[in-house]
Amino acid sequence: MPGITLINSFRVPAGRDEEFFAMWKQVNTYMRSKPGYIGHKLHRSLEPDASYRFVNVAQWESKAHFDAAHDDGFRALVTQPGWATFPPPHPALYEVVHEGKAEAVAA
Amino acid sequence: MPGITLINSFRVPAGRDEEFFAMWKQVNTYMRSKPGYIGHKLHRSLEPDASYRFVNVAQWESKAHFDAAHDDGFRALVTQPGWATFPPPHPALYEVVHEGKAEAVAA
Repeated sequence: MPGITLINSFRVPAGRDEEFFAMWKQVNTYMRSKPGYIGHKLHRSLEPDASYRFVNVAQWESKAHFDAAHDDGFRALVTQPGWATFPPPHPALYEVVHEGKAEAVAA
Repeated sequence: MPGITLINSFRVPAGRDEEFFAMWKQVNTYMRSKPGYIGHKLHRSLEPDASYRFVNVAQWESKAHFDAAHDDGFRALVTQPGWATFPPPHPALYEVVHEGKAEAVAA
């Protein structure tokens, strides 16, 4: 079973990377303890003024696992006052429909 | 060397998935033949009305490789009339700043 992928793109105002990152890690630590979490990579843009400064790409075993992980504990974390000072993210769930890798170079 | 990550999010009007996918695959076939291409995953949202219907997450060896791959051949492909009928994508380059995997379950 390939699982599903969460892609969550965050707008972060200039100069607030560290503040965002600290809050994000708090949520991440909570979520990765949940059943069905497989793995994640948090990306930061090379250019400071990219539309989305951070993008989290995370794998979960199923949408049911993902939904169940968004419980009261999750809501308590993301309703802390600090989050309200950032634009709301737009998380969405995806399936991989096309995949490729570079050919190995012949020896 | 971890390389860099392209994240390119596409808005695709309802009912035009197949048209988009065919054009995207044409560009992808071209780009993956270029030096520095490592791999990609094209994601399609589980919900038809997600803000970004498709998201490509691709690894390249460096920004220099990525920039060099966007040559005349690439421009010829993406300036075909079909692409102009879709909202422009907003590609951006990223580095991975945080990563995790589920703990293996003890036997």
